[in-house]
Amino acid sequence: MIKKAFAMKIYPDQHEEYRRRHDELWPEMRTMLKEHGAGQYSIFLDPESSELFGYLEIEDEARWSGTAATAINQKWWHYMADIMETNPDDSPVSKELVQVFEL
Amino acid sequence: MIKKAFAMKIYPDQHEEYRRRHDELWPEMRTMLKEHGAGQYSIFLDPESSELFGYLEIEDEARWSGTAATAINQKWWHYMADIMETNPDDSPVSKELVQVFEL
Repeated sequence: MIKKAFAMKIYPDQHEEYRRRHDELWPEMRTMLKEHGAGQYSIFLDPESSELFGYLEIEDEARWSGTAATAINQKWWHYMADIMETNPDDSPVSKELVQVFEL
Repeated sequence: MIKKAFAMKIYPDQHEEYRRRHDELWPEMRTMLKEHGAGQYSIFLDPESSELFGYLEIEDEARWSGTAATAINQKWWHYMADIMETNPDDSPVSKELVQVFEL
């Protein structure tokens, strides 16, 4: 099992909207993530900096990397682009973090 | 099971030292964390910002909160204080993050 973490940014006035949309995550999106090997997947917010911290456990990097190109993921990115920092293709600006400790 | 995440800061020139000390985490420290209900516990670094993100799974908040006062944890804080942002008692400056999504 591989542990991954990444950081993203949402707009400061969109904290509640980000949470609302995730509370109502599309079932097809949930299914797609699980089909690509996601186990645990949590996102946390730093309310001061509007930084998001994602933590997930996957089975395989190659399988997981397939998520980006799925139609449902593309649709999700377009849907979320108005409330967070994004790249020109509407994917979130995301920084991969480096694991430095494991209990 | 409760999922927690928090952010801390290390000094920009101490990334490797932080990792080295955690690679060699004192066995008594590891035992103490597990005895207080920690399951998964990972720390990730953003090399750009020198921000650390901790993710952990605990059984009980009250039991976990007992870690801070243990002699071994106090000793660890003093040991780590020269390479990270700390409070006057040498505890790391730590921001609790808010969970906004769970798969």
